[in-house]
Amino acid sequence: MSEIKWSEIEDKIARRAFDIAYERETLALIEGVRAKASAIAKLDDLWHLNDILSSKRYEIDGKYDYSHASLIFTFAGLLQEKWINLDELEGINPDKIAKIAALSRMQ
Amino acid sequence: MSEIKWSEIEDKIARRAFDIAYERETLALIEGVRAKASAIAKLDDLWHLNDILSSKRYEIDGKYDYSHASLIFTFAGLLQEKWINLDELEGINPDKIAKIAALSRMQ
Repeated sequence: MSEIKWSEIEDKIARRAFDIAYERETLALIEGVRAKASAIAKLDDLWHLNDILSSKRYEIDGKYDYSHASLIFTFAGLLQEKWINLDELEGINPDKIAKIAALSRMQ
Repeated sequence: MSEIKWSEIEDKIARRAFDIAYERETLALIEGVRAKASAIAKLDDLWHLNDILSSKRYEIDGKYDYSHASLIFTFAGLLQEKWINLDELEGINPDKIAKIAALSRMQ
């Protein structure tokens, strides 16, 4: 996939969709943590929150990779998890969109 | 310190003081985390909370050691951090109390 070229306009659309997905996922995570934290009653709940945060940190660090070489896979993952939808990729070459959609269904 | 003997009555007083300290510290931690969590605005705040939790987990796991061999040191630490006060150790042999108090001032 590393040979796939992204035009300037595609890059702009991709960057925007990527940033939107990141915003959505981080906002959902922050809201989830706030809700969990307000329900903490004992020490085990704290350590459970600690485990969730460690795991999410690792996951998010790995997931949001904007290199062109991995962008098709990145978007397939974000589409599969519903952090973006196909409409938000409109303007990107249909071959790329088809690859993203196909990969998102395989994961 | 491992040769220090704890009588049954001393053990009862010590266990109670130990449990009270644990309750106080964990309650303070839970309240602190709830307050921090409600103020989380961005992802970095989440990871900062994650770091605090990881560090506190390690600290608390190590600190609350109720073996008789380390109890003098355990209480010295809890006294120094004000999770217990000397009154709560009343009934324990004055030599032990003096050791605990002296050690708490050295830490």
